[in-house]
Amino acid sequence: MSHAPASDEDVTFATLLDRVRKHVDGALATWLTPRVAAASAVSAEVGAAAEAVCGLALRGGKRMRAALVGAAFVACGEQDWARVERAMIAIELLQVYLLIHDDWMDDDDVRRGGPAVHVLLRERLGSKRLGDAAAVLAGDLSCGYAQDALLESDLPAERVLAAARAFARIQEEVVTGQLAEMSTHASVEVIHALKTASYTVTGPLALGACLAGASEARVAQLARYGRPLGIAFQLRDDLLGTFGDASATGKPVGNDIRQGKRTAIIAEMRGHAASEAVLARVLGRVSASDAEVAEVVRAMETSGAKARVEARVAELLVEARAALEAMGLPEGSPGKRWLAGAVRALGERSA
Amino acid sequence: MSHAPASDEDVTFATLLDRVRKHVDGALATWLTPRVAAASAVSAEVGAAAEAVCGLALRGGKRMRAALVGAAFVACGEQDWARVERAMIAIELLQVYLLIHDDWMDDDDVRRGGPAVHVLLRERLGSKRLGDAAAVLAGDLSCGYAQDALLESDLPAERVLAAARAFARIQEEVVTGQLAEMSTHASVEVIHALKTASYTVTGPLALGACLAGASEARVAQLARYGRPLGIAFQLRDDLLGTFGDASATGKPVGNDIRQGKRTAIIAEMRGHAASEAVLARVLGRVSASDAEVAEVVRAMETSGAKARVEARVAELLVEARAALEAMGLPEGSPGKRWLAGAVRALGERSA
Repeated sequence: MSHAPASDEDVTFATLLDRVRKHVDGALATWLTPRVAAASAVSAEVGAAAEAVCGLALRGGKRMRAALVGAAFVACGEQDWARVERAMIAIELLQVYLLIHDDWMDDDDVRRGGPAVHVLLRERLGSKRLGDAAAVLAGDLSCGYAQDALLESDLPAERVLAAARAFARIQEEVVTGQLAEMSTHASVEVIHALKTASYTVTGPLALGACLAGASEARVAQLARYGRPLGIAFQLRDDLLGTFGDASATGKPVGNDIRQGKRTAIIAEMRGHAASEAVLARVLGRVSASDAEVAEVVRAMETSGAKARVEARVAELLVEARAALEAMGLPEGSPGKRWLAGAVRALGERSA
Repeated sequence: MSHAPASDEDVTFATLLDRVRKHVDGALATWLTPRVAAASAVSAEVGAAAEAVCGLALRGGKRMRAALVGAAFVACGEQDWARVERAMIAIELLQVYLLIHDDWMDDDDVRRGGPAVHVLLRERLGSKRLGDAAAVLAGDLSCGYAQDALLESDLPAERVLAAARAFARIQEEVVTGQLAEMSTHASVEVIHALKTASYTVTGPLALGACLAGASEARVAQLARYGRPLGIAFQLRDDLLGTFGDASATGKPVGNDIRQGKRTAIIAEMRGHAASEAVLARVLGRVSASDAEVAEVVRAMETSGAKARVEARVAELLVEARAALEAMGLPEGSPGKRWLAGAVRALGERSA
C-alpha cells in the first residue's frame, strides 16, 4: 500500500527475491517433470495428481519462503544461496501440500488465480468423492516430494539431518495450527504462529541456518526474528483478504467473511456491540450479499478493529527488527540487508 | 528396554515378533505421551487429534513392520535390534497415518477392532465436515511424528540420512499405489507392490539396512526378497478379507465386497461369465444382503479365482525364499532365520 520510494534494503531483498524466483521456477520444473512422467506411466489417476501438484507449484508463487532459506543460509556465513536449491524446492512443495489440504478443508475453490486442486481433480475424475480423496493424496504426494528434495541436498550429512528435523517440526506445527484453528477458544496469535509463521518464516530460516551448519544459539536468534515477522505476515494477509486488491492477491474479497474465518480483525471486533450484531447476521453465511459483506467491512473500520490489527503489525515489525539487531550480523553484509529487507517485504506487502 | 542380544541367537521370528511388540508398545507409549500432552495444551481439537493418533497406534497392531526393521538391521551385520527403536516407532506411526487417511477415503468405520479415526473425530467435534478435516490432519500429524522419530535415531548421520530417503520413498510409493487403486486399468499386482509391499515389507527392510550402513547392493537384494513377500502379504489380506475369521482380522467379512474393492480375487473372476453376472449385481452395493455376499463368495470358489490367488501366493513365497538364499547370509545366523521366518509369518498368516 506504501507509495514511498523503495529504500536500498528493499531493492536488495527484492532483487534477491527476483533472482530466487527465476531460479526456483526453473529448478521446480526440472525436478518435477520426470516425476510427473513416472506417475503418468503408473496410471492416469496418479498422473493427474502429480500434474496437479506440478501445476500448482509452477502457477505463480512469490518464492518468498525460498528466498528466506537463501537469506538465512548466507546470514549464517555461507556465500552461495544456490547451494540450498533443493531446500528451496522442498519448502515450495511443502507449501503446495499445505495449500492443497487447506483449500479442500476450507472449501476454497480458487488458488493462485486458478482452480484449487480438489476442484481440478473432481472434474478430472468425474466424482466429488474420488476427486476429494485424490486431492488429499496429491497433497500427501507433494509432502513426500518435499522431503525427497530436501534430503538430496548436497551438503554435509549432519547439516542435512538437522534441516530434515527442522522440516518435520514445520509440518507438525502447521498441522497443529490448522487443528487449533477449528477451535473457538485458541488464541488467534498462537494459531498464526503455528499455522503461518512456522512454514512461512521461522521454518525457512531454520532450514537455511541448519544447512549452513549454524549453532543452535544462532537458529534460536533467527527464530526470535522470524516469529513476530511471520505473525505480522499473517495479520497482513488477514487485512489483504478484506482490504486488498483481489486481482493482486488472487483471492476474491469477501471470501473470508462468507466462510466465517476467524481472522485477527474478526477477533478484534468481539465485544463491540454494533459489530457483534453485524457479525451474527453475516459472518459465515455463504449466501451473504455483497451489501452485507460491505456492512461487515464498514464495521471493521468503525469499530477500530482494522486499525488495531494494523497497529499490532507495526509493533511486531519493530520486534523483528530489534531481534535482527541483536544477532550482531556485520552491518551492510548481504545476510543482514536481506533479513532487514524481508521485514518490509513480508510485513508491509500489498499482495 | 533391556534385552540380551546373545539370547537372540536362537530365537525364532515368532519370538522376535513377540519381543519387538512388547518393546515397541512401551516405546510408542513413552514417545507419544508428552506429545499428546503438548497438543492438548494448545487446544481441545489438537489434543483430540493427537489422542486419536496415539489411541490407534497403541490399539493392537502386530508390529510386524517394526520386527522387519530389526531383522534387516541384524541381517546387515548389526547385533542389537533395539538400536533401531526410533525407526520402529517411525514405521508404526507411518502406518497409523496411512490407515487414518485410507479409512476416511474408503469410508471404513472399523479399524483394529475399534472406531476408525474419522468416526471418532466426527463424534468428538460434533460435525462430519470438521471430523473429516481433523482426521486428515491427524494423519498428517502422525506423518510428521513418524519423521521426527526416525530422525532421532542415534546412529551415524549418513545412515540416518539414507534411512530418511528410504522413508520418503515409502511415502511416495504408498500414495502412488492408493491413487493407482482408483483406476480400473492399473494392474492389481502393481498396486499391491506400491500400496502394501512398500510400507509393509520392502520399506521396513530398507530402513533397517540403511541404518546398519548396508551397501546399495545389499539393499537391492533385500528388495528382491521383500517385494514378492509384500505382494503375497496383500494377496493373503485379500483372501482373509473374505475367507478369514473376522474376530481375528478385526474387519467385518463382506466389507470388501460391499465396498466394491478391486481385490486380486475379484480381478481373477473377470471373464468368467457366471461370476461377472453375480459381481454386476452385488459388488460395490453397500446395501447388499448377507445372502448376496455369500453368492459372491461362492462364485469366488467355483470360478477357481480363490485357488488361483492361493497358487500365486505360493509362487511368490518361493520367489522370496530364493531371493533370501541368493543373499548368501550365514546359515543359521539370526538375520537369516528371521527373514526366513518372516516368509511364513507374513505369507501364511491367518490374521
